[in-house]
Amino acid sequence: MRLNLMLFILKEEMKFDLIHKDKNSEARAGLLETDHGMVETPIFMPVGTQATVKTMAPRNLDETGVQIILGNTYHLYLRPGEELIGRFGGIHNFMGWNKPVLTDSGGYQVFSLKELRKLDSEGVTFQSHLDGSSHRFTPEKVLDIQRHLGSDIMMVLDECAPYPSTHEYAEESNALTLKWAREARVLYEKKERLYGYDQWLFGIVQGSIYEDLREGSARELMDMDFPGYAIGGLAVGESKSEMYRITSLCTDILPAHKPRYLMGVGMPEDILEGIARGVDMFDCVLPTRNARNGTVFTWNGRLVIKAGRFKEDTLPIDEQCTCYTCRNFSRAYLRHLFNANEILGLHLATLHNIHFYMDLVKKSREKILNNEFSVWSKTVLPTVANLIENNN
Amino acid sequence: MRLNLMLFILKEEMKFDLIHKDKNSEARAGLLETDHGMVETPIFMPVGTQATVKTMAPRNLDETGVQIILGNTYHLYLRPGEELIGRFGGIHNFMGWNKPVLTDSGGYQVFSLKELRKLDSEGVTFQSHLDGSSHRFTPEKVLDIQRHLGSDIMMVLDECAPYPSTHEYAEESNALTLKWAREARVLYEKKERLYGYDQWLFGIVQGSIYEDLREGSARELMDMDFPGYAIGGLAVGESKSEMYRITSLCTDILPAHKPRYLMGVGMPEDILEGIARGVDMFDCVLPTRNARNGTVFTWNGRLVIKAGRFKEDTLPIDEQCTCYTCRNFSRAYLRHLFNANEILGLHLATLHNIHFYMDLVKKSREKILNNEFSVWSKTVLPTVANLIENNN
Repeated sequence: MRLNLMLFILKEEMKFDLIHKDKNSEARAGLLETDHGMVETPIFMPVGTQATVKTMAPRNLDETGVQIILGNTYHLYLRPGEELIGRFGGIHNFMGWNKPVLTDSGGYQVFSLKELRKLDSEGVTFQSHLDGSSHRFTPEKVLDIQRHLGSDIMMVLDECAPYPSTHEYAEESNALTLKWAREARVLYEKKERLYGYDQWLFGIVQGSIYEDLREGSARELMDMDFPGYAIGGLAVGESKSEMYRITSLCTDILPAHKPRYLMGVGMPEDILEGIARGVDMFDCVLPTRNARNGTVFTWNGRLVIKAGRFKEDTLPIDEQCTCYTCRNFSRAYLRHLFNANEILGLHLATLHNIHFYMDLVKKSREKILNNEFSVWSKTVLPTVANLIENNN
Repeated sequence: MRLNLMLFILKEEMKFDLIHKDKNSEARAGLLETDHGMVETPIFMPVGTQATVKTMAPRNLDETGVQIILGNTYHLYLRPGEELIGRFGGIHNFMGWNKPVLTDSGGYQVFSLKELRKLDSEGVTFQSHLDGSSHRFTPEKVLDIQRHLGSDIMMVLDECAPYPSTHEYAEESNALTLKWAREARVLYEKKERLYGYDQWLFGIVQGSIYEDLREGSARELMDMDFPGYAIGGLAVGESKSEMYRITSLCTDILPAHKPRYLMGVGMPEDILEGIARGVDMFDCVLPTRNARNGTVFTWNGRLVIKAGRFKEDTLPIDEQCTCYTCRNFSRAYLRHLFNANEILGLHLATLHNIHFYMDLVKKSREKILNNEFSVWSKTVLPTVANLIENNN
């Protein structure tokens, strides 16, 4: 009895300190405590799909200021499998990263499989994109996979409704997501921790672009009392204004003393807009995927580094940037690496882009603490959203 | 007059200190001085074909103990071109590597083009493997390209005779190589330095596996008095015993007080055998290319890291190794990265393999200084040459 009570208390008390709220916006600076260290919010989480943030060694994540990364449950379950990772005592040990990890539920990937998956009220059956083998995810299965993966923050299985969805479809989908969330929440309470450190479970607000559904979803999840809440089902094709509207609607309802995570978002301007609306956590493949395609971010906008105009350019990607790439290499050299298909180019561009995203959230936090976020983000927004003219 | 004399003296006096010769073999420890720093010999030079050692940032080369790298003139001439690199003040600035660089002559790559090249007594005309465009290399052109690239050590244009070659073919080919070497040596004397630091020119001994030709080649080149000498045309298909025999023949003739470079060699055991025969410098794509194919070197032999037997292996590649990869990652994790086609795997394996090769030459040098090289290399040779059984 006493042990159960203690576990219960531990799980209820994920520590999230709301340090400061900006005077002129909903932006907030917080401190999230995990057993793998503190996370200063607002924070961006680079995506490490297969137990690696592509091209980046853990020490490179450290040097760019990364505090927490995201792993994809679907991919890790298929390869190398949660059992193997469990034999290493969890994903941190397996990949040599000793800071916090959040894993998604795998739902987004499974529902992206379209013809390869079949949904029912208890879960979803799907075929692996790797070898066509058949698998099944239920709320409990997904919770157990993540428990074995050993992430600090786990997500409940949800259905991410496609965009556009009818109100009817979105309503049914949301009802299922809430049913699964409730099942997961109950099971989470009963399960013991596997590795001697806490793992927290977040609920996910769904409901497409429908305000009534989003509000209902948020309130029902709050009744279930999760350690934190995510806003899912955005950045799936809706307009930016719709995305911002739904984000605001959710953050207005969600409790102030728990972390809020806007899933799969996004471009630098989307992150600033999300922060202004009270979001604490973000993840997105954009900085890493764009880097591998040769697009790099700067405070003056994006550059397509392969462009002919950079052929003889002795400047770094961004003169204001202090990352290893910008301290040591010219645009001309990076362009050469991309043109010659050299892997080092992918690494150096990724390192820069992650550094830029971490700089973005770090500066945002500083500005929030000084009540300057609104003014500052208005001056920054037009330029970071810019695609610098590409005359090649 | 005075300036010319000074240039002459500078060029003649490349500083190579022969610090110690092993008592029981021809192995030697030396110190080669360049304007980009000292090189402790025997040394291995990782190959940086396109102004990057594949997957490795310059700081990674530093941490693995690399003292000098090799660049490929043929590739750099085609892309990005020696003019562009010249605008950066040479390859060191362009790629962010401030230690010595040796460039090859491009001859080996051009003669590998086979149908795409045409040889005459003045040079060779060839088509680019990138776009089919027509180009011509002469002894002067190749010297000028390397002067603009700004390598610390340049190589004369040579023809690397294929294996097997008849005595007649090898003799004619060698006569042409010597003619070109003489032209390059004369031109080298007349050319001024472009970047405020010295660039040295090495001659290349050719002659296939024919002792009379090799001896003639070495003696004629010595008459031309190069700052250093390479042994070319080996590791092209001949047996190991032939390679070792020709290496010994050359090092017996070449002057003791000048550096000797065995081109394109090789496996760890070949490097030990070369050192035992008095070779000072080596280059080869093996550690880097093998790494990208998932083969890693250890003091106990090579491992194919993708093999099923490593699936749950919590050990590092090599328990004795102190590289970043071995300090932080298991064989199982590396195997996962390779199986999931993750770029980080290529980087971590490359970093390890280069570290191993640098360790190999560093340990060799220590043993030479203690007159223990012969005994030590005999104990090491059987294991480093081993391919550890791969049961998947």
